[in-house]
Amino acid sequence: MNARVLIKNLSALDDGPVSVSGWVETVRDQKKVQFVVLRDESGAVQLVNPRNSDADGVVIADEPATSISSLSQGSFVTVTGQLKHDERVKLGGIEIKLATLEIVTLAIPETPIAADSSLDKRMDWRFLDLRNPKQNLIFRIQTTFEHALRTYWVDNDFIELHTPKLMASASESSAELFEVEYFDTKAYLAQSPQFFKQMAQSAGFGKMFEVGPAFRADPSFTSRHATEFTSIDSEISWIDSHEDVMALHEDLLVAAFTAVKAKHGDEVKTLFDVEVTVPSKPFPRIPLAEAKEIVKQHGYEVPRDDDDMDPEGERRIAAYVKETYGHEFVFLTDYASSIRPFYHMRHEGDAGLTNSYDLIFNGTEISTGAQREHRIDVLVEQAKEKGLDPEELETYLDFFRYGVPAHGGFGMGLARVLMLMLHQTSIREVTYLFRGPTRLEP
Amino acid sequence: MNARVLIKNLSALDDGPVSVSGWVETVRDQKKVQFVVLRDESGAVQLVNPRNSDADGVVIADEPATSISSLSQGSFVTVTGQLKHDERVKLGGIEIKLATLEIVTLAIPETPIAADSSLDKRMDWRFLDLRNPKQNLIFRIQTTFEHALRTYWVDNDFIELHTPKLMASASESSAELFEVEYFDTKAYLAQSPQFFKQMAQSAGFGKMFEVGPAFRADPSFTSRHATEFTSIDSEISWIDSHEDVMALHEDLLVAAFTAVKAKHGDEVKTLFDVEVTVPSKPFPRIPLAEAKEIVKQHGYEVPRDDDDMDPEGERRIAAYVKETYGHEFVFLTDYASSIRPFYHMRHEGDAGLTNSYDLIFNGTEISTGAQREHRIDVLVEQAKEKGLDPEELETYLDFFRYGVPAHGGFGMGLARVLMLMLHQTSIREVTYLFRGPTRLEP
Repeated sequence: MNARVLIKNLSALDDGPVSVSGWVETVRDQKKVQFVVLRDESGAVQLVNPRNSDADGVVIADEPATSISSLSQGSFVTVTGQLKHDERVKLGGIEIKLATLEIVTLAIPETPIAADSSLDKRMDWRFLDLRNPKQNLIFRIQTTFEHALRTYWVDNDFIELHTPKLMASASESSAELFEVEYFDTKAYLAQSPQFFKQMAQSAGFGKMFEVGPAFRADPSFTSRHATEFTSIDSEISWIDSHEDVMALHEDLLVAAFTAVKAKHGDEVKTLFDVEVTVPSKPFPRIPLAEAKEIVKQHGYEVPRDDDDMDPEGERRIAAYVKETYGHEFVFLTDYASSIRPFYHMRHEGDAGLTNSYDLIFNGTEISTGAQREHRIDVLVEQAKEKGLDPEELETYLDFFRYGVPAHGGFGMGLARVLMLMLHQTSIREVTYLFRGPTRLEP
Repeated sequence: MNARVLIKNLSALDDGPVSVSGWVETVRDQKKVQFVVLRDESGAVQLVNPRNSDADGVVIADEPATSISSLSQGSFVTVTGQLKHDERVKLGGIEIKLATLEIVTLAIPETPIAADSSLDKRMDWRFLDLRNPKQNLIFRIQTTFEHALRTYWVDNDFIELHTPKLMASASESSAELFEVEYFDTKAYLAQSPQFFKQMAQSAGFGKMFEVGPAFRADPSFTSRHATEFTSIDSEISWIDSHEDVMALHEDLLVAAFTAVKAKHGDEVKTLFDVEVTVPSKPFPRIPLAEAKEIVKQHGYEVPRDDDDMDPEGERRIAAYVKETYGHEFVFLTDYASSIRPFYHMRHEGDAGLTNSYDLIFNGTEISTGAQREHRIDVLVEQAKEKGLDPEELETYLDFFRYGVPAHGGFGMGLARVLMLMLHQTSIREVTYLFRGPTRLEP
């Protein structure tokens, strides 16, 4: 590799020869001097090329002047030149006086998207959209966020698993299931790693985590849904209740937000005008029934016939929590059994409630967690009660017949966390390549 | 959570009260004393319960004696008792004299698999198979291996991406492609993140990595193939040749093997009788044509009509390298263009060879890497030459039309590395839940 310097590292260097590589953001091709703003993954810098004239004062068509004149926006180039610190230069107080310019790819002179293009149009040209420093930062934050989670897990002896995405049957429900042609039979795409992460508990793995894709054939077009999304999952054994799961969940989020704030807090402030706040522990916990009562007292009756919350209710309870406790997160706990899957453990002495929670962040649900029912007889009863045929669950139920410890865990949507952390209005902004009912490209 | 102690941590404790949780490996239910070997994710310990007798010397049916008598293998229990160090105890020189025993799940008294069960049978009961300390260790090694890779990437400013697994068309070739019913149309499962990791270079991300599933509708039943596998991918910009990719690849493997050896080397020696060797840099590099010549001189002519190697040739060149250089790895480089995909860059001045490599570890291919062709006109020509229709590649080709730096990368099969590191004969042993043409369960 050449002795390429990242643009962010230039300002710390003394004046002298440097080489940088990146793409052309703008060109000002003037008669006497040419200016190029060059960007790489770390920042942007101004390149300057005073043109040479002959004895009569006529500008000479020499290099790199001729190459600069040919540059289109988006072209990738490698340049060498003299770095010069100069406070008058608005862009970082430095510029590079060009010696050579090598064109690696000359982009076609077209700019299919602009700053004011619609989100959908930007998605069409995502590889250009991602050249925007804001978009670039989103994925640096994603990297930092995930690495902090994994470091916590690894430091605490969790095992990383890659559960299969191809399944013989549904992992959650037969609705919203993608069907795959699988040789002479059918397979289905995993809606979540639920069954397989519970299997790890039966296998005696103790504590596990996985970050991987999950698939839902969900035809909805909301800003919070995708047909493929990155699911952050963790499951632990030997718990007493969902309280142990929430304690883990808090620790993980505190670790991740701490890392993001430390590494990117200033940039987030500059580019998104958002202050990253590290949440304090414990996060507020409110039983769901109580939460519904609170929003009702504040003038909003959840328009549902079942015992569930709705998105507006979640926004309102989050606003209440923010005002009352100054907290961006709230655990809504003890959901009714009627609206939870069969494998959630129910309260001892009150089968109408479950040892479960949803985690709300800045007004939107980002995660569901629960203690799982590990007693085979109770589990079979609960499956039947939900109208499921235990025979179709045999593989799963076997995990419990041969022994399993008390356990629980959560699944959390990566894109939702990033969206809400950066005050974005859609997960499409924070997903590398969004997949929805009408989007499979690029 | 209770004050549970992991079994591996017991020996460092003083004699006194402890609580441990795990599953029953064996029970010796004798008249005067009962012994249980209890295992958790960290190890095994002997529990002992001297039985109480009445004045006439008749054994009393008290607790925990009665519960112990009811225990089946695999049952999950939590016990409390007095830890006692005693050199005469073979299992770690410690035992726990029981006070209480709580049965969390009583396993059904059946042991569907034994140590000598076939691999296929063990796969049927994978959740029981994984209780074996060897299997458990494999996934701890997987965790350490991946975390070391990611730490290297993060420390070196790579961006972690989750590329979509649902695609509108093939990512590599239209053979071995799984088709998905996608609302009113068809989608396909990604055979690799190839196009999307190259897109990140066009997006100016500079350096990226991904660890995620890849899918191949490969009907073969070899010990090295699966229909779903975990692919380790990395792609970097601003390279001069595939040499830069190999240098990255070496650094990553050295970091990962160093971490695995440090954390698990002793256990690997004990359970697998394998010495984990941290490879020295640089790994040997041999152009493929030369490698074929070497194995020919050593008595093996590769029985292929094309310019490729075969598995036996790979074993032989690896044996030669091991003997000659004492190295478990070898890069075979400069594969013929005829046997490489259209997007591999070809030698300047010799279009018959590519800037590519395969990495062989202990005799088997674990990875393919290459510099990619980034010049749109050359890329289109190469696609046509391979019989591909550029119109079907429009989305991909657009990445290059709008500018892209010189770049390259590799994809590496996680399970293959683990299999070869631990001298296992099949990737099924080192995959949490294997997926093959006739296996979708559990």
